[in-house]
Amino acid sequence: MLTPQSEDFPRWYQDVLNKAELADNGPVRGTMVIRPYAYALWERMVDEVDGRIKAAGAENAYFPLFIPESYLQREAEHVEGFSPELAVVTVGGGRELEEPVVVRPTSETVIGEFMAKWVQSYRDLPLLLNQWANVVRWELRPRTFLRTSEFLWQEGHTAHATEDDARAYARRILAEVYRDFMVEVLAIPVITGVKIPQERFAGATNTLTCEAMMRDGKALQMGTSHELGQNFARAFQIDYLDETGTQQLCWTTSWGVSTRMMGGLIMAHGDDAGLRVPPRLAATQAVVLVVRDEDGAVTAAARGLVDRLVAAGVRARLDDRISTPFGRRATDWELKGVPVRIEVGPRDLAEGQVVVVRRDRPGKEPIPVERLAQEVPVLLSSIQQSLHDEALARRDDRTVDATTVEEAASAAADGFVRIPWAAVGDAGVERLAADAVTVRCLITADGDVPESVDDPDLVAVVARSY
Amino acid sequence: MLTPQSEDFPRWYQDVLNKAELADNGPVRGTMVIRPYAYALWERMVDEVDGRIKAAGAENAYFPLFIPESYLQREAEHVEGFSPELAVVTVGGGRELEEPVVVRPTSETVIGEFMAKWVQSYRDLPLLLNQWANVVRWELRPRTFLRTSEFLWQEGHTAHATEDDARAYARRILAEVYRDFMVEVLAIPVITGVKIPQERFAGATNTLTCEAMMRDGKALQMGTSHELGQNFARAFQIDYLDETGTQQLCWTTSWGVSTRMMGGLIMAHGDDAGLRVPPRLAATQAVVLVVRDEDGAVTAAARGLVDRLVAAGVRARLDDRISTPFGRRATDWELKGVPVRIEVGPRDLAEGQVVVVRRDRPGKEPIPVERLAQEVPVLLSSIQQSLHDEALARRDDRTVDATTVEEAASAAADGFVRIPWAAVGDAGVERLAADAVTVRCLITADGDVPESVDDPDLVAVVARSY
Repeated sequence: MLTPQSEDFPRWYQDVLNKAELADNGPVRGTMVIRPYAYALWERMVDEVDGRIKAAGAENAYFPLFIPESYLQREAEHVEGFSPELAVVTVGGGRELEEPVVVRPTSETVIGEFMAKWVQSYRDLPLLLNQWANVVRWELRPRTFLRTSEFLWQEGHTAHATEDDARAYARRILAEVYRDFMVEVLAIPVITGVKIPQERFAGATNTLTCEAMMRDGKALQMGTSHELGQNFARAFQIDYLDETGTQQLCWTTSWGVSTRMMGGLIMAHGDDAGLRVPPRLAATQAVVLVVRDEDGAVTAAARGLVDRLVAAGVRARLDDRISTPFGRRATDWELKGVPVRIEVGPRDLAEGQVVVVRRDRPGKEPIPVERLAQEVPVLLSSIQQSLHDEALARRDDRTVDATTVEEAASAAADGFVRIPWAAVGDAGVERLAADAVTVRCLITADGDVPESVDDPDLVAVVARSY
Repeated sequence: MLTPQSEDFPRWYQDVLNKAELADNGPVRGTMVIRPYAYALWERMVDEVDGRIKAAGAENAYFPLFIPESYLQREAEHVEGFSPELAVVTVGGGRELEEPVVVRPTSETVIGEFMAKWVQSYRDLPLLLNQWANVVRWELRPRTFLRTSEFLWQEGHTAHATEDDARAYARRILAEVYRDFMVEVLAIPVITGVKIPQERFAGATNTLTCEAMMRDGKALQMGTSHELGQNFARAFQIDYLDETGTQQLCWTTSWGVSTRMMGGLIMAHGDDAGLRVPPRLAATQAVVLVVRDEDGAVTAAARGLVDRLVAAGVRARLDDRISTPFGRRATDWELKGVPVRIEVGPRDLAEGQVVVVRRDRPGKEPIPVERLAQEVPVLLSSIQQSLHDEALARRDDRTVDATTVEEAASAAADGFVRIPWAAVGDAGVERLAADAVTVRCLITADGDVPESVDDPDLVAVVARSY
């Protein structure tokens, strides 16, 4: 049904998008339609990330989609980085506009303008804002969820009194919001590190990143957190009076995760039968399928089981579409990656049991009806853990150490390569690029996020990537 | 501090937006920035409306911001209605686009295109979709929250096998989602009725509406639900094979509520001291204020009270900013309309009590600390009811009956006027327009939503409006 991953991974990805009814291409090049099943997963991602952002003290707000072209030009690197990707509105209300407006590719500039207005004194700091929004970056080589002309994301923007405070906050978001969410909910182990200068966000002094390995050995950048130094504060005059009454410039940060994580979810866990959704993320954790039913008794019993599961805290739903062949429905839930399938037929029911099938690995076992509400939550925890462990083991298997750039370039054909950053340098970065290999991030020898890119003992993680 | 409502209602509205830190104007004409306190209220609206939409069986999805210009042209009335308000992107990725794309003013067209793709058989119907999104309609006379060039909303789009089913669903959304939310959560009594043909959504065969009275006697359209007949189904070929294998055209609906409801909230309940937020909506239902504190004991006690209130299901928060004068903080919470203020000072605490102040009407009473967690939820219910009852009484007071159009035109200077629709007609509509009075909706003699606009006994509710 799906192209096997080993045969053609990109085609497998496209097949999953179609067959599991996750997304369609929009009519305008590079745009996408997120279908209900995928959107419900995105809503769960939003819930989980939003809760962590609020726990980190940031408040949600909303800033306009349209930004005057002149705003972008105030930060030189920023405009240089984003100009080639802009969508520009030149006509509004039937008239040519005097100043064209750009559709936001990101909102540092417009939010900077308002931060400058709202921040007066050290008492107003830190100012911790976040918004959930759509952004537009014109894509020449779009790929659904991974690189689309329009995508959904959250973008956090903060202003701080000191560089230390800004740095600490950017790192806190990376660890407590992004990494925690990705590891604990998405069950995707991520490497957190710092980008090399060439790979920084346009206008940042430091870009921190979460990098994950997909099942084809390639890397996906899952989220980034930027230290912006005083670049935007200077461009938009975000300043404050300190405790001594002296005017000071703020230090700002910005950070975001997007619908790109949907692509990561699919490619980190999906197998030849389709998606595999980690239970903590799943909008539907368990589906109760009526195998067949002659007099409504099986459906009634199945509905009762759903109620009991819901009461036990399981996000369960009923599939009683008995006019559709059972096999087709089972395959469909498998494709959609629902963690647990509970099959209820008249024979099993007569024996007081149901058949429980886990999605993460082969496993099908009869469970007595009266133990179901106890067993399913335990099974869900086990699936969550096993998906994570499987992804981690695969990444470790496919990560090797190298000492020379040549070695790294060749080994990166199959996965991640760790190599001393001192052995790479700018020339090495260029050499790797010839094989479409990039430095995903720099980490310390202990695998931590470095304090600075100038540490001579840093390790570069290099790979091919999406 | 605020301009009194009786002196200048529009200026009072603008003052509340500024002083309560609800919204700012964006840099591009007609756009707005929704600040954190207001955005938290919007998030609560989204939660409550979204839950009701899901309970009505619709699923969320996401469709692109950009729509090819040609899509809009497929439905004649639709393009005629929206053309003057469009924002058009002509440049993307540094190049002139071959076909300009419009920024969605609403999504019937692009969603219609995908409905046509997804609906094949009667088994696929009804198809019940909803999206939360931003839309753009270029505004010549913008007013924050009420009429902005960009606004946030939900737009539901459904396809049905029969006209009856489509009509019933559009009416169900109006009653079970919109009216229920507005009355029960926003505490705003709304009149539900049907729009006259001139006031229909561009492309609809029938537009149902919720109309509320603001505190200046003017009407605000709070939400609409449209029967689209087969207009969009024909334009986008949304058809299906019925049970006999015959090709049939679908019947579609669309329905939406937006950030405009924020304006309704402010103008339906706000008074000369600021906003008054109904407790069921409030993101913060009770604020516990430390009046003053010398040794940290009052703050510790106040924090304990917040915990007890939260445990009792109250959305409570602490205000321990003792370096800011107490009076200024109290005024600020009043401005922001938090339903209950709990003042904790050392003297009261020594007596084992706190001072509880309700926001809806004068009322300040000492309550023993140990009864607080019981009393506050009761008080919140009482405030919810009293805000609703006050709004309803005001509306009833300011609604009169008229028998002639002249009478209606003059009485509408002060509120709503009910007049037999038979006494108005097209000529009457024109006459009313001369006084900036419009037919808000038609209702039955019993105040219900009419089955048809052709019923000879309908009553027109006319008013000035936002």
